[in-house]
Amino acid sequence: MDGKSSSNTAGKPIRCRAAIARKAGEPLVIEEVIVAPPNTGEVRIKIICTSLCHTDITIWRLEVPPAIFPTILGHEAVGVVESVGEGVHEVVEGDTVIPTFVAECGECTDCLSKKSNLCTKYPFSLSPWMRDETSRFTDANGETLYHFMYVSSFSEYTVVEIAHITKIDPAIPASRACLLGCGVSTGVGAACKTAKVEAESTVAIFGLGAIGLAVAEGARLCGAKRIIGIDVNQDKCEIGKKFGVTDFVNSRNIGDKCVSQVIIEMTGEGADYCFECVGLTSLVHEAYASSRKGWGKTVVVGLENPSATFTLSTFELLYSGKSIMGSFFGGVKPKTDIHVLGKRYMDKELQLDEFVTHEVDFEDINKAFDLLLEGKSLRCVIWMNK
Amino acid sequence: MDGKSSSNTAGKPIRCRAAIARKAGEPLVIEEVIVAPPNTGEVRIKIICTSLCHTDITIWRLEVPPAIFPTILGHEAVGVVESVGEGVHEVVEGDTVIPTFVAECGECTDCLSKKSNLCTKYPFSLSPWMRDETSRFTDANGETLYHFMYVSSFSEYTVVEIAHITKIDPAIPASRACLLGCGVSTGVGAACKTAKVEAESTVAIFGLGAIGLAVAEGARLCGAKRIIGIDVNQDKCEIGKKFGVTDFVNSRNIGDKCVSQVIIEMTGEGADYCFECVGLTSLVHEAYASSRKGWGKTVVVGLENPSATFTLSTFELLYSGKSIMGSFFGGVKPKTDIHVLGKRYMDKELQLDEFVTHEVDFEDINKAFDLLLEGKSLRCVIWMNK
Repeated sequence: MDGKSSSNTAGKPIRCRAAIARKAGEPLVIEEVIVAPPNTGEVRIKIICTSLCHTDITIWRLEVPPAIFPTILGHEAVGVVESVGEGVHEVVEGDTVIPTFVAECGECTDCLSKKSNLCTKYPFSLSPWMRDETSRFTDANGETLYHFMYVSSFSEYTVVEIAHITKIDPAIPASRACLLGCGVSTGVGAACKTAKVEAESTVAIFGLGAIGLAVAEGARLCGAKRIIGIDVNQDKCEIGKKFGVTDFVNSRNIGDKCVSQVIIEMTGEGADYCFECVGLTSLVHEAYASSRKGWGKTVVVGLENPSATFTLSTFELLYSGKSIMGSFFGGVKPKTDIHVLGKRYMDKELQLDEFVTHEVDFEDINKAFDLLLEGKSLRCVIWMNK
Repeated sequence: MDGKSSSNTAGKPIRCRAAIARKAGEPLVIEEVIVAPPNTGEVRIKIICTSLCHTDITIWRLEVPPAIFPTILGHEAVGVVESVGEGVHEVVEGDTVIPTFVAECGECTDCLSKKSNLCTKYPFSLSPWMRDETSRFTDANGETLYHFMYVSSFSEYTVVEIAHITKIDPAIPASRACLLGCGVSTGVGAACKTAKVEAESTVAIFGLGAIGLAVAEGARLCGAKRIIGIDVNQDKCEIGKKFGVTDFVNSRNIGDKCVSQVIIEMTGEGADYCFECVGLTSLVHEAYASSRKGWGKTVVVGLENPSATFTLSTFELLYSGKSIMGSFFGGVKPKTDIHVLGKRYMDKELQLDEFVTHEVDFEDINKAFDLLLEGKSLRCVIWMNK
């Protein structure tokens, strides 16, 4: 039985509940689904809990590709290995794992390089399939259900390729561990890995959602002296303080000024690092304009509209000494870095508790959508079977 | 006489020859001019030789601001200190110096940082004046002549602020030393300082003029394994080899393909570093598209049209792991770095000889323009009094 599981359910389809997005923007429907056993190189996971990330909402309300329905969304979760397919030796039944939309094969040029987290063997895509272009999900009527970002965690069971699975210390509370599957890793990584924020530096963060606050948390861990948060929601002023935000700018209360003017007035010459965590082109421009000449780095973390573009002056780029870059999953390599973040949480260095503002049962998953859409939650944890 | 010069001409206006650009695009005219003595903090230099850089041509043929006429162009030169103004202690009469359009006050935040070469006290501009908004040049009729980039080296004598002056080993042949005043420093610095090209990496250079070839030279010094040069001029294939270019792509001979396709086919996944050395928006896009996912850096070095812009996809930036930055004077701090480059030349590490393809007497300065415009020269050295 080398590499195979011995659980009772191993090798058999599992009937369980999943929250299905049947149509763009319509409430998810909890239905019975059939989850096929894992194929070679795959793992079937019993999800413990999953949190809602804004990317789930972005795709859920999109009426055009890459959105495709019916689908099982969800990509920020923690679970326990129920069974493994042929050739899987890295995890065994009962292991606590985090599935991630980013893969790490461990063998390709990118995985072997310290500079990239873009696995070449299993590249990121919004494909609605497993890598073999099939699905492991069917509904009660036998209709195929689409996967989402190789995770599909809005289901009691899901099937994920081993390259997308990271073992995690089971002592980490599940409602904290799940956050490492996307949002917190993305934000903390954007500060620590992509931007490599230096101690004593000044950071400006555009948008204090969970990602922006995780950037603040990362900047705080890096020893940034000043962390300026910018948001339209005044409540974020108090919330930001919990994550190391030292200065708050309500961009609705700055009169005729643009945000970059305010940031430059506050800092003298601009921020050393600017993070765009909303996904608006205008804010990419403001972030870039707010960054300090000579060495300012602008890091784009947010994306709302996949067809968005931004335009810069070549002259300005050339004569400013500034640079601009994106941060995909915070530059985090899942298998290499996530367990380190978990350890930093257990060591009380990295804050995770404050991100969890709400918790709901699986039946109430649509409430999690409402809370995030209304800007009331940072992370709402959805418990599959509490 | 502390800090002041004792030369015979010190403190007096000097009558000498200068090549005046009186109208956009019209041949320079060699005329007698009067060069005022240096004010406080200024140095009057006897130019030994000056080389023609493409930026001189860009401004010379521009009919709108920032071009303004009549002006004395030229900004890549070497000379000898004739006299110094009050408060100048860093150089004395007889010192061999390179005037640079970039200043280094040595005291501001940027000068004290290793990350910036954008002196805050003396910021770069295309102002046609000295820093006090006056000129040191008048023509025989008493008309004021404009300065250019704080250097104006197309004159037998010029006045330059001490912050713009770097002492250089007089043992370096003048026709080589002058190249460090702009082009070679810019290109070598773009590779070594801005991009920090790593050993064994792959580099693509768009445009093999003197700047592009200097980037190749810098990449070669950094130990790049493969240096791909792209140009429309087939002659650059042979020329490039002298500067470490290992592969040549004639972008006129690639059929229906775009350059980035060719580069990606050649390299498998794209170049680790891409340098745009022409100043065309389309090439900024091609360079970016040619850079490797995960860590590819695109460095913009060229600028033809000051109002040019480029547009990138936010999604592509976010999911590619690529970054884009400009390189101003190669990130070189004149007083800190130029003498090091001079030493590397004397130590036979840095190649300078091969850049000098032509030499002319001052009287023939317009020939230097023709040679560069026709793509025949890399650097044409203009000797003031050979």
